[in-house]
Amino acid sequence: MNRDQQLAACCVAAGLDLHEALQIGGQYVPLLQHGQEIHISGQIPRVGSQVVVCGRVGESCSEAEACRAAHIACLRALVLLYQHLGSLERVARILRLNVYVQSAANYTRQSEVANAASALLYQLLGEAGVHVRTSVGVYQLPKNAAVELDMVAIAA
Amino acid sequence: MNRDQQLAACCVAAGLDLHEALQIGGQYVPLLQHGQEIHISGQIPRVGSQVVVCGRVGESCSEAEACRAAHIACLRALVLLYQHLGSLERVARILRLNVYVQSAANYTRQSEVANAASALLYQLLGEAGVHVRTSVGVYQLPKNAAVELDMVAIAA
Amino acid sequence: MNRDQQLAACCVAAGLDLHEALQIGGQYVPLLQHGQEIHISGQIPRVGSQVVVCGRVGESCSEAEACRAAHIACLRALVLLYQHLGSLERVARILRLNVYVQSAANYTRQSEVANAASALLYQLLGEAGVHVRTSVGVYQLPKNAAVELDMVAIAA
Repeated sequence: MNRDQQLAACCVAAGLDLHEALQIGGQYVPLLQHGQEIHISGQIPRVGSQVVVCGRVGESCSEAEACRAAHIACLRALVLLYQHLGSLERVARILRLNVYVQSAANYTRQSEVANAASALLYQLLGEAGVHVRTSVGVYQLPKNAAVELDMVAIAA
Repeated sequence: MNRDQQLAACCVAAGLDLHEALQIGGQYVPLLQHGQEIHISGQIPRVGSQVVVCGRVGESCSEAEACRAAHIACLRALVLLYQHLGSLERVARILRLNVYVQSAANYTRQSEVANAASALLYQLLGEAGVHVRTSVGVYQLPKNAAVELDMVAIAA
Repeated sequence: MNRDQQLAACCVAAGLDLHEALQIGGQYVPLLQHGQEIHISGQIPRVGSQVVVCGRVGESCSEAEACRAAHIACLRALVLLYQHLGSLERVARILRLNVYVQSAANYTRQSEVANAASALLYQLLGEAGVHVRTSVGVYQLPKNAAVELDMVAIAA
């Protein structure tokens, strides 16, 4: 399977529509390209109009669920890249990934949650998916989402 | 009114001086340009030497006050751009906006607070103000500010 | 002393090995260069396999210790730049520094902690080390680190 076929399969598994315009929450755009750099807005685990993984990781949300949240949010970012570029084959690199985990006071495994996004990027894009990353634990996220992430990609 | 006249009017309304050097808090600079990319340091709702909107949104600070905080912090960023470029007419694009909201444990409307900044960017810059955005709820901000934001702009 | 000699001296003082591959925590890389822009992953105050400054600043971690955490994390970023470029003399500029401080509920001196990193950048790089900065107080950091920071540098 090429990258786009893999993306389509992942979307089906997550309940995301590869061709539907993704809903966002405010007066901004989900993606902007300047030169080769493509900036993507913060993505939460939204499927259709629903945020599917909510709560505080380590308290009302399990780590496994948080990983699913990171996977779905990352998938949304990849769908945006696919829709913008026409194909993931045109992604030269994921340059940076920022992961925000809505955390319980003593939860310190933000890296493990972020790994679910990093793993997806590598699975679909190979070497082009290997990125620089920052992950932190925040107090609250929009819509009570368990995870939010944004990224910068480089177009081929 | 052109962009600069609108900016001047907004500054008057907020009590900001368009031509005064803005105070910042540490050993760094408020703005740096590399190529066309202009990076702006985190701005809090400071007017003169005073942080005018403090507290935790959803607790000791109302959402309306938080929106005012986002508006003022964004205005400060625009003043920095104006002072650096000589005119907001030379802003080709706001590429990215990051908004940090000092939030109560159950406050999940960070996007609504960030909209106050996004709206100002659109009001003053039109299409050039439409950006990519990430907003998160953090536990504490410098000087107990209710909101902090930073951005990346593109010079014409 | 030139920049590299100063870096070596700082590493000795902090117990860091200038030539050892730095350990990171996930499926990503510590540094990526695109054009002149060098992105660095989030660094925590790790020395060898140990995170040496943990806890919540203003509660279980003092401000002095947090400054030490910021210093070590920043030093790690500089070591990465040194290893990548062969010499810190090839750093044209530190463009942006983001500092995340794991904070107590009422701790609002994140800027003062971030200053420890900013001061090190200026000490080693002079004008090239003067950067744009955002510092926020977050609820949790990976491995219970007191401070995390990332940066973007420009190669000469």
